[in-house]
Amino acid sequence: MRHLLGIEGMTAAEAGALLTRAGEHLDAAQRGELGPAKLAGRTVMNLFFEASTRTRTSFEMATQRLGGNVINLSPSLSSVAKGESLLDTARNLEAMRPVALVLRHATSGAPHFLAGRLHTPIINAGDGSHEHPTQALLDALTIQRRIGYIQGLTIAICGDIAHSRVARSNALLLPLFGARVRLAGPPTLLPRGLAEAYSVEVHDRIESAIEGADVVMMLRIQHERLASAMLPSLGEYSRSYGLNRARLALARPGALVMHPGPINRGVELESSLADGPESLVLEQVEAGVAVRAAVLEYVCGV
Amino acid sequence: MRHLLGIEGMTAAEAGALLTRAGEHLDAAQRGELGPAKLAGRTVMNLFFEASTRTRTSFEMATQRLGGNVINLSPSLSSVAKGESLLDTARNLEAMRPVALVLRHATSGAPHFLAGRLHTPIINAGDGSHEHPTQALLDALTIQRRIGYIQGLTIAICGDIAHSRVARSNALLLPLFGARVRLAGPPTLLPRGLAEAYSVEVHDRIESAIEGADVVMMLRIQHERLASAMLPSLGEYSRSYGLNRARLALARPGALVMHPGPINRGVELESSLADGPESLVLEQVEAGVAVRAAVLEYVCGV
Amino acid sequence: MRHLLGIEGMTAAEAGALLTRAGEHLDAAQRGELGPAKLAGRTVMNLFFEASTRTRTSFEMATQRLGGNVINLSPSLSSVAKGESLLDTARNLEAMRPVALVLRHATSGAPHFLAGRLHTPIINAGDGSHEHPTQALLDALTIQRRIGYIQGLTIAICGDIAHSRVARSNALLLPLFGARVRLAGPPTLLPRGLAEAYSVEVHDRIESAIEGADVVMMLRIQHERLASAMLPSLGEYSRSYGLNRARLALARPGALVMHPGPINRGVELESSLADGPESLVLEQVEAGVAVRAAVLEYVCGV
Repeated sequence: MRHLLGIEGMTAAEAGALLTRAGEHLDAAQRGELGPAKLAGRTVMNLFFEASTRTRTSFEMATQRLGGNVINLSPSLSSVAKGESLLDTARNLEAMRPVALVLRHATSGAPHFLAGRLHTPIINAGDGSHEHPTQALLDALTIQRRIGYIQGLTIAICGDIAHSRVARSNALLLPLFGARVRLAGPPTLLPRGLAEAYSVEVHDRIESAIEGADVVMMLRIQHERLASAMLPSLGEYSRSYGLNRARLALARPGALVMHPGPINRGVELESSLADGPESLVLEQVEAGVAVRAAVLEYVCGV
Repeated sequence: MRHLLGIEGMTAAEAGALLTRAGEHLDAAQRGELGPAKLAGRTVMNLFFEASTRTRTSFEMATQRLGGNVINLSPSLSSVAKGESLLDTARNLEAMRPVALVLRHATSGAPHFLAGRLHTPIINAGDGSHEHPTQALLDALTIQRRIGYIQGLTIAICGDIAHSRVARSNALLLPLFGARVRLAGPPTLLPRGLAEAYSVEVHDRIESAIEGADVVMMLRIQHERLASAMLPSLGEYSRSYGLNRARLALARPGALVMHPGPINRGVELESSLADGPESLVLEQVEAGVAVRAAVLEYVCGV
Repeated sequence: MRHLLGIEGMTAAEAGALLTRAGEHLDAAQRGELGPAKLAGRTVMNLFFEASTRTRTSFEMATQRLGGNVINLSPSLSSVAKGESLLDTARNLEAMRPVALVLRHATSGAPHFLAGRLHTPIINAGDGSHEHPTQALLDALTIQRRIGYIQGLTIAICGDIAHSRVARSNALLLPLFGARVRLAGPPTLLPRGLAEAYSVEVHDRIESAIEGADVVMMLRIQHERLASAMLPSLGEYSRSYGLNRARLALARPGALVMHPGPINRGVELESSLADGPESLVLEQVEAGVAVRAAVLEYVCGV
């Protein structure tokens, strides 16, 4: 049984193979070709305990590119309201024989918990503030296709590191491909021990993190996190930790800007940067469908 | 890039071609035939910022008749709650390469706004109180199939004209086919300048609008609009502007009754008329799937 | 026009034919085979006025196994909010030509009401506290496959009999196959006249119902029903009417445990029994997809 639970434990060869296959899907999509109908007659279940238009839709597109059917489940609306546990819900769905289960859950480790108990491939579509492996894979694919390589690049990831599964998965994945990763954010949103746990540099000022970087990846700040950041407002967050053109000038000339979306325009990212030639934001979204198709092929063994 | 944004700007030849093709779909469906699988392996996204069982389902059926996949998005549940703009949401969806985007939005002009910025076919499924072009096309198809022609007919459209995108699109479309259109409603729900802007007659009493009409199309009145109509109750609205058998007797013998649904039975339309032999209501719904299949073929160029 | 409205009125031969065909689907699914694409290009509508992840998903999987498309409708979100009646909603959906309509509704008799007025096959997916025929069929299939036969078995159904459509449909179906059915529950949740209306024994204590039984089927108790049961708490319900290992020891050695789900673990069913070797719970879920595929073939005549 193959799962995609996280970047943790993945080898560079495994990640590279996924990116290679995803690149083939992306090429085909850009030529307007239909995907291979490898999942025809099969059903993928999207089990999303947290709402996410973008990620859910991306998995849905990926499944449809493979000719498969999708069933979307947002259990808050139904069984969970009746008090059924995650494990009971998942076991019941498994008994209906989906070819894979895509799980988003607010609890870190939820997909690993299920993977140890079910006999159905599990894909982690984001678990708490732990991992979001398909996001890191699509980020890597986007960088690789725009720049041509990842090896030797300096990539700054800035924002609410403490709560970001995107930061965590990228901090694991990008060094596998030889990138230098810098994590930056308000000290209150930078967990201790990051530099020991990951092959990353840690910065508590955005300026030093950006300096000389090839890529600056901004994270979404959530209003409700500001209290734990000891920052009173989004405006103050923006002034100290937002990316604007002046700060981007500290990076290497031609440095690229990324964001996992949805963007708080004018908060963590200046609007003109989100839409400018340095922005990879929409290429990230496009790469996401290709990566998820490759991941579905991988876990389903097709 | 072809869109279907509204009836405005459409020629009689263009509208006629859509109706001809829709008629072929309707014939095939009535013979129980499967639709042509022209969208096999492709995905249409239904992006509905306002709830609508009927219209969303109709587009879903139309896509499925063409062999395509559907992804439904009701963004209030997710990204919009996170504050993402219409344009960001749409650009992100476009990056996933749907073959068309069907948009319903409370803001007049929203689909035109997107059409100017995206490179994906946009179909307007209702924008504010502006246009609802597939509804007007299905109304025209329904009339044409029941009566055999539209040229020379007198068609009364009655109700809350001010807020009705159905009225507006029909006021543009039906005259293209040579119909005389009369718009009627409470003076407070009849915008000034209608007779100048459209090739229509304007009546502030339903009786004079119905007199001699071949078709009477009743619009849905919404309770929250009564205040602006200076009418205290649905009952009073019904007494002054509802269609009953006595009022229908003013029309031509055998006159037909239409309603875009859902009907407030006993308010704008007497229940026995909604269900009687003069009612085209269910034929309208049936024609809707055929029209939307033809529109999808048109914008997708298949 | 063939419908599946309830077990009432069904003959043993009809029910047996459905189980035989469902068994073929189950065999094929267990061998990993794709289903037959008999509904390719056709659309089944799931019209669920009550939320139900499990049943809705099961019908969705069944339709997809037959190669068909699904449209899910939860009308509380839309037209019903606008005040449209069940009949208007259903007639509108019928006009879009689905191949079948799967209905769940809080009102007993709702599917029978529609079946008398529409020309589309109706499948009852649960109507009020009346019937849930596909649940009874999947229960019968599960028993038949695990034990080999139903004839002569003693099957105890325990819990809130008064409000249980599962109990009612099973009380009609299992005797058709020669089973002895015992219905048991708190006296306040046991309607009078059961023994006269159905070929069942009635017990107001769970112990006497279980004694010597081959199968014990526990029903879900809902917190809001406790008042009418004159029981102050789930804990008290559990002590008097829950199934635990001590009570199960009253049944035949090797007796099996069933539950339609979702389970209130520790209330009507001890957790270790739900997960133990005597539990048929997940086999019931698996059988559900097969039964629903067979029922769709039956009503669609494919």
